[in-house]
This record gives sequence, C-alpha cells and structure tokens, in this order.
Amino acid sequence: MFKITVTARFGDLDALGHINNIVPATWFELARTPILKIFDPHMSIDKKDFCLIMAHTDYDFTDQLYIKDEIEIRTWISKVGTKSFTVYHEAWQQGRLCVKGSAVIVHYDFNIEKSTPIPEDKKKLLEDHFLA
Amino acid sequence: MFKITVTARFGDLDALGHINNIVPATWFELARTPILKIFDPHMSIDKKDFCLIMAHTDYDFTDQLYIKDEIEIRTWISKVGTKSFTVYHEAWQQGRLCVKGSAVIVHYDFNIEKSTPIPEDKKKLLEDHFLA
Amino acid sequence: MFKITVTARFGDLDALGHINNIVPATWFELARTPILKIFDPHMSIDKKDFCLIMAHTDYDFTDQLYIKDEIEIRTWISKVGTKSFTVYHEAWQQGRLCVKGSAVIVHYDFNIEKSTPIPEDKKKLLEDHFLA
Amino acid sequence: MFKITVTARFGDLDALGHINNIVPATWFELARTPILKIFDPHMSIDKKDFCLIMAHTDYDFTDQLYIKDEIEIRTWISKVGTKSFTVYHEAWQQGRLCVKGSAVIVHYDFNIEKSTPIPEDKKKLLEDHFLA
Repeated sequence: MFKITVTARFGDLDALGHINNIVPATWFELARTPILKIFDPHMSIDKKDFCLIMAHTDYDFTDQLYIKDEIEIRTWISKVGTKSFTVYHEAWQQGRLCVKGSAVIVHYDFNIEKSTPIPEDKKKLLEDHFLA
Repeated sequence: MFKITVTARFGDLDALGHINNIVPATWFELARTPILKIFDPHMSIDKKDFCLIMAHTDYDFTDQLYIKDEIEIRTWISKVGTKSFTVYHEAWQQGRLCVKGSAVIVHYDFNIEKSTPIPEDKKKLLEDHFLA
Repeated sequence: MFKITVTARFGDLDALGHINNIVPATWFELARTPILKIFDPHMSIDKKDFCLIMAHTDYDFTDQLYIKDEIEIRTWISKVGTKSFTVYHEAWQQGRLCVKGSAVIVHYDFNIEKSTPIPEDKKKLLEDHFLA
Repeated sequence: MFKITVTARFGDLDALGHINNIVPATWFELARTPILKIFDPHMSIDKKDFCLIMAHTDYDFTDQLYIKDEIEIRTWISKVGTKSFTVYHEAWQQGRLCVKGSAVIVHYDFNIEKSTPIPEDKKKLLEDHFLA
C-alpha cells in the first residue's frame, strides 16, 4: 500500500463549501507516481519510451470532503492482467472514507499505438502492492 | 440530448502530447449545466436550497484527444430513479469517440444531509433528455 | 483583437460563490491559442521546434465573476520586443470588466535553453493584433 | 516565513515536459492557508463573515520546474496597508528559484461589497511574517 497525505486548497472548494468532485482525481493521480516509477524510474516521460495509458477511471463519493482537515490517500494494486493493471484508491478524512476509485492502466506502445504485454518483472513489482 | 463544443487549452496537454485524462471530467461538468438548471433555474447555488450531490462518476477512455481540433460533448439522461439519476456523456473529436462516462447524481437535502425523492415534475424534465 | 466566449463550470466557483481567481488564467491561456499558431501553425508542440516560454503573468481582479453569464475574453498584443512580446487580456461579463492581465512570452530555443530573436515575419503577424 | 513542500502530478506537466505556468498559482494558494486562518481561524469560509478578496496576482517564471523533484514554497508578507496586504511567494526546486510572485489581498465586506480597514490585531499577526 502507498500512502500520501494531501491538503485541499481554497479553490478546491465549490459553492457548496465542500471539495469539488473532480479534485480527488488529481490526488489519485499524484498517488500513482510511485507506480509510474515502476515503469519509468527516472520520470523522463518521453513518448518514445513511456508505456502506460489510462483506459478507465471511476470514483464513488461516499462522504463529503472539507478543507479543514488533511486527507490521506491510500493506494493499492487490485488486479494485474496480461496487458493492463488496476489501481485502487481510497481518500480518508478524519476517519471517514470519502472517496474510493479505480484506474485501469494499459501497457501501451505509443510508437505503434497498441497495447503490449506487461513484462514479468514489472508484474512482480506491481504485485508487491496487492490489496490484501 | 445536450451538445456543447469545447476546445482544449495548452495546459490540458500532458507530457505525452495528448489531453490529460482528468480534463474531460471538467468538460462533462460544464455539459451538465443545463441539468443543474432543471433544479436551480437561476444558478444561485445556495446550500440551503441546492439539492444535488455527486455520488459516482466513471470514464472510459477509448481514443486519444489532441489539442488541434474541437471536441463535441454529447450528454443524455440514461436513468431516472426515485432519489437519483444518471447522466451519460460522450466526447467526440474528428468523428472519433474518445471518452464516454457517467455521473450518478443524488437528490439531496444539505440541511439534513439525506437523500430525498426527486419531485415528479423534475423527473419529467429529465426524461425529455433520455438516451434513445 | 481576438475574442472568445467562455462559460464557467460549477467547480470554477469557490466557497464564496464567485469564480476562483486562478480560473481566468486558464481562459487567458485558451485565448492565446491563435498566438501560439503564429509560431506553431499545426500545434504540433514538439519541444525540438517549439519556441515560446512564459516569463511573466499578472492579473488584476477588478470585479467579481459569477457562473450565470457568459464571459468574453478580449486579447491583444501590447508590446513586441526583440526576444519577447506581451499579450494583454481582458475578461468581461455583463458589461463589467472583471479581470485584466498580461503575459510576457519569450522566444526561446529549448535545445540550447536560451532566448532567441523573434523572426521579423512573426513580429509583423503579432503587430496585426496591437492594442489600438 | 511559511514553508510547504509540494510535488507535481503527472497532469501538471504540459507538452513541453515541464510544469505548466498556471500550476504554481495553485501551490501559492495552498501556501496562503495559514494566512487565511489569521482571518478565519476555523476555515468556515462563510460569505457572511469571510473578509478577504483577491485584487491582484503576478508571477515571474525564472526557471523551469520539472516533475522529478519536490518543490518548496516559501511565503512571506511583503506589505501591510490600511485595507489590503501583499503576500510574496517563491517556488524553489533543487536549489533553483523557479517562480516568484505576489498576491494583493483586500480586506472586504461581502455584505456591502466594499473594502474595510484591516483590524489592528490582524495587522500585527501579518507583520510577524514580514519579509526580512
């Protein structure tokens, strides 16, 4: 499991005084950086070599998020397939689970614009973070 | 069906030269404004009266989006339940379906923090935009 | 002068019920696309060839912006120097000037990480949009 | 001086592989939270009582920011006037000053839509963070 702590900024609030529902997507993206590093250790993010593309995301909003308290983002790998894997995230604030969501990421070759098999060594590194 | 046309901005691109996957969420939100207006015609968005809260969103990324060409966002109502309804969106660029996604919105009373039934007249207005 | 019309989305509001002050920066960026096209007509935005880098931006917030009404962004070139030029923007809503701001953009070679002179033909194209 | 450390997310990059110039505005906003708390200690951000409005921001981009390394945001008060004060921010990465910027914030009554004098006790609390 990966953990990061984030704090909302003033503009993340919307007119209802809670965090707008698009904001957790940016926190989950930030939480995936260690997973990107499995595939691109130096974070060079060069399209010639970069090998991940987003296929699907979903978000369940189970409780409201406010600006006052820190938010903990917990991240696991929930599935590893042949050519894609799934990341599962939770956002917690003050002991309340507020958002849970998944991201399905495809192993992809941008030069030929096709999905490609995830190398076995990368699979192993992903599996170290399996949701128990 | 509701239609809007949007144009990506320079910063919507990411290091892979395509539109970052979080950006379509902002376009879909913009496309839902006419639906908000069914419930809050003057867009006063006062927490005492406002009656919608987001429960779920999902996004399927079926093709890459680029900065060069306009993007058409097509929006329908796909389901109307007792206390919630579902909005379905598609993002099209140059004849290619690039993103499709749903948003489940709950009819909600922020004063008592509970879901409440959607009034019948609002249901009818939603159903005018049913996905054929 | 360049003109675009934009509409705020729900999440652009902040807890005070007006548009958050960072949002106009995204509209001004969108309004600069025709200026980018003077230098990169096909919007390929390839670091090997792309020749612009942002040196400075400023924003004066002269009135509040709300979600209800469209916003018109008016854009001019206010200065053309040897190696940089300045873009001037205004955001108008319902006859009220709400934001004015400038962006100083440097003609830049990313390969050598140095500013370079703006070609004469590009200067002419910029000057067609001078603030009267 | 206030210090926070932030990390860029994948989508903060633009097609040039560096952090888009609008992103530091969000970090500076986050860095101002302790200053908001001087005026709204419980961060209730209720328009009836909230007393700050943004009048001006500016940003000088002195070096490029990348995704790989953490960014330190340093924040001071640079000026305290009768009805407004100025916050000064710097963004540092790997010993390089990459962005510096100011925000002029007006003490404001949203009920009468007018600026009002900053109370003396708040001025003192601001002055504790003066730029040396």
